[in-house]
Amino acid sequence: MKQIRVGLLGFGTIGTGVVKVFQQNSELLKDRLGAELILSKIADLDITTDRGVDVPVGVLTTDADEVLVNPEIDVVIELIGGYEPARSFVLKAIENGKHIVTANKALLALHGDEIFAAADKHGVEVLFEASVGGGIPIISSIKENLCANRFKSIFGILNGTCNYILTQMTNEGAEFADVLKVAQEKGYAEADPTFDVEGVDTAHKLALLLTLCFGTKIDFDDVYTEGISNITPLDIDYAEMFGYKIKLLAIGKADNGQIEARVHPTMVPLHYPLADVEGVFNAVRLVGDFVGPIMQYGHGAGMEATASAVMGDVVSIARGIAAGAGQRTPSMAYMPNAIKTIDVKPMADICTQYYLRVGVIDAPGVLSKISGILGEHGISIASMIQPEREASGATPIVLMTHEAKEGDIRAAIDEIDQLDVVEEKMHFIRIESDME
Amino acid sequence: MKQIRVGLLGFGTIGTGVVKVFQQNSELLKDRLGAELILSKIADLDITTDRGVDVPVGVLTTDADEVLVNPEIDVVIELIGGYEPARSFVLKAIENGKHIVTANKALLALHGDEIFAAADKHGVEVLFEASVGGGIPIISSIKENLCANRFKSIFGILNGTCNYILTQMTNEGAEFADVLKVAQEKGYAEADPTFDVEGVDTAHKLALLLTLCFGTKIDFDDVYTEGISNITPLDIDYAEMFGYKIKLLAIGKADNGQIEARVHPTMVPLHYPLADVEGVFNAVRLVGDFVGPIMQYGHGAGMEATASAVMGDVVSIARGIAAGAGQRTPSMAYMPNAIKTIDVKPMADICTQYYLRVGVIDAPGVLSKISGILGEHGISIASMIQPEREASGATPIVLMTHEAKEGDIRAAIDEIDQLDVVEEKMHFIRIESDME
Repeated sequence: MKQIRVGLLGFGTIGTGVVKVFQQNSELLKDRLGAELILSKIADLDITTDRGVDVPVGVLTTDADEVLVNPEIDVVIELIGGYEPARSFVLKAIENGKHIVTANKALLALHGDEIFAAADKHGVEVLFEASVGGGIPIISSIKENLCANRFKSIFGILNGTCNYILTQMTNEGAEFADVLKVAQEKGYAEADPTFDVEGVDTAHKLALLLTLCFGTKIDFDDVYTEGISNITPLDIDYAEMFGYKIKLLAIGKADNGQIEARVHPTMVPLHYPLADVEGVFNAVRLVGDFVGPIMQYGHGAGMEATASAVMGDVVSIARGIAAGAGQRTPSMAYMPNAIKTIDVKPMADICTQYYLRVGVIDAPGVLSKISGILGEHGISIASMIQPEREASGATPIVLMTHEAKEGDIRAAIDEIDQLDVVEEKMHFIRIESDME
Repeated sequence: MKQIRVGLLGFGTIGTGVVKVFQQNSELLKDRLGAELILSKIADLDITTDRGVDVPVGVLTTDADEVLVNPEIDVVIELIGGYEPARSFVLKAIENGKHIVTANKALLALHGDEIFAAADKHGVEVLFEASVGGGIPIISSIKENLCANRFKSIFGILNGTCNYILTQMTNEGAEFADVLKVAQEKGYAEADPTFDVEGVDTAHKLALLLTLCFGTKIDFDDVYTEGISNITPLDIDYAEMFGYKIKLLAIGKADNGQIEARVHPTMVPLHYPLADVEGVFNAVRLVGDFVGPIMQYGHGAGMEATASAVMGDVVSIARGIAAGAGQRTPSMAYMPNAIKTIDVKPMADICTQYYLRVGVIDAPGVLSKISGILGEHGISIASMIQPEREASGATPIVLMTHEAKEGDIRAAIDEIDQLDVVEEKMHFIRIESDME
């Protein structure tokens, strides 16, 4: 039986999951692959800590070159994370003819062009299913199964930390800061949570999905990115009164020759499947011109689910090796020379519905002033609730608008916030009522 | 640019969808494939009916051999449906070195072994993503991305006709027969709906998924199959009172060296994502030892969604041809010699919760008699509602049991049905409260 040898860079949480797959499911993989996968080398600076898995003698090494230039190794799994030395190691492995499997979306977002070009030059594959959505096979679905579709839109819940926090805030009426603290204690959030809660991680993943779906280069700075740290239990309650849940969504849309690329808290109708995605689960909804809407849902992170995605990629490469094929599918779903640069639509031009909440003094004529300003900017009100006065003293006015332009909304808000009667400046949350 | 030529057998609804993909998305496919796909020939007995799509002169033919033995054609799409001549055509195409894409689950359920063996002999691929779940890439996910997992269970809503009927019955409180009639008028159900509403189509699809997930041959007669024609609006209402929706589920589970293989109406907790799958949508929930639970959701049928899946397969084969590879992934996810025969667990041994409804005369001691018989068979009651008397005159007793063996339930029901006090025999519906 043909043997295919794998080297692993980085023996952390996901690396340990990969070792577990080798230990638990080797025979199964043989039955499904018709070849034997052998984990030949694991390189990490720390090879003494007990990870709770048995590793045969001679497999562990602190010398990355035992993986990178080892003539026996066919596939290198990069699970170091971050930019360096991950980038140099991956490039060196490619130069030595190794295929690459990685879960490192930050690396691909920043150095993807360089890495994919090197892979094309050396005729090897670079697969990265684990970099978006954990165990959900969304990247492969876009590159392979759905490739006959012109995509219309992507909507993703792509960060388990944010979704866990929003779910807890929703279910328990708790404040962001309190839930974050619990999430940190439980290991669902990092000590420095900025990368997750401010939407940066979600934006990295959206950038990858946008290229895969639309064949466009994305300048990461063009992705509008707004996190969840300003969401209050109050807004979550009002959202529910209107029939919505608040989720941190990655949104990508083809829009008259431009694309929308934005990450922000979004109100999603309660009856939409995405509204039911709770806790650390991730989900992606895609709409294609032939397939229509399609959704995938599963664990977005974690040792086991991520290892499942990594090993799916390893088997894919192994099947290519066994079939005598090299590169098969272009790394970013489009042939390199077919990738264009589509303009990202400026946020000021985005059209959607808005939820607005402002705290005012309880006096006659206030609502008329506010609706007057909205009207002057061409914004019409779809519905309104005026709840009981908040403990803080301000009286909230809560509105849902009809579809309006972001630029107009922002201009109206600037004007409203300067009114004498405003005690708490306006909060706004975008709404997606029609996910096509 | 390399050209890859495709022949189409069967110019019906899905065939028309395939032609539409070629017409609308040819340039896109070129960008994603790096080769040109050309639809060279379409064979159908009827080449005169206007399908609303333009076909170049010389492409249409009534002679299947212009596809099957045409030396220019690399890939044959079989969309004739049924057993013959689909089987003979597919075998002839394989003998002539053509790769096959088909949506024909009936053909694969009955003649899969013969077809896959021929494909192995001639080194060609047979792909069939469109045969289960329409546009949902569930087959590919099992064969490729999730292949490092030992699967624990599959739960599928795989028949759009049944799901449409159950959804309408639920939303409108209508009877099965009335909804079926409307579904037939709308084209969501066939004139003879038996194949769909009695669960046969779902069972065919489950049989395919069981082999793909568990590497076992399935004798189709071993799949327990029960349709939805006995479901009443009354049971749907009571189910909702207990917190459940009724869905026709395909269920497969690995169970101590046996597998469960069953298709029947099932109560699903309202908070489960599968409960929200409405109308003609399909969904599959899989649980793997590494990936955990994962769900995919989308259009389960229809011209466009099915064409999306067919063309995904065509591109996959085209990429293999362009990369110089032949067969890459075994047709049924396992190497042919690794496919075993795992015993299907007899239905009498299945353990699950049950919903029971029986109509009785309103007299003292009736409930005690019924619960006594259940108790004698080791069945304990989890909850009960005794609603108002039905119009028919019988007083319903509605129960949910704790987990019990199907054999015990059936024995108890036989005994209860013979009681003098029983006016309407017992109905029962199985419950899945824990979808792991």
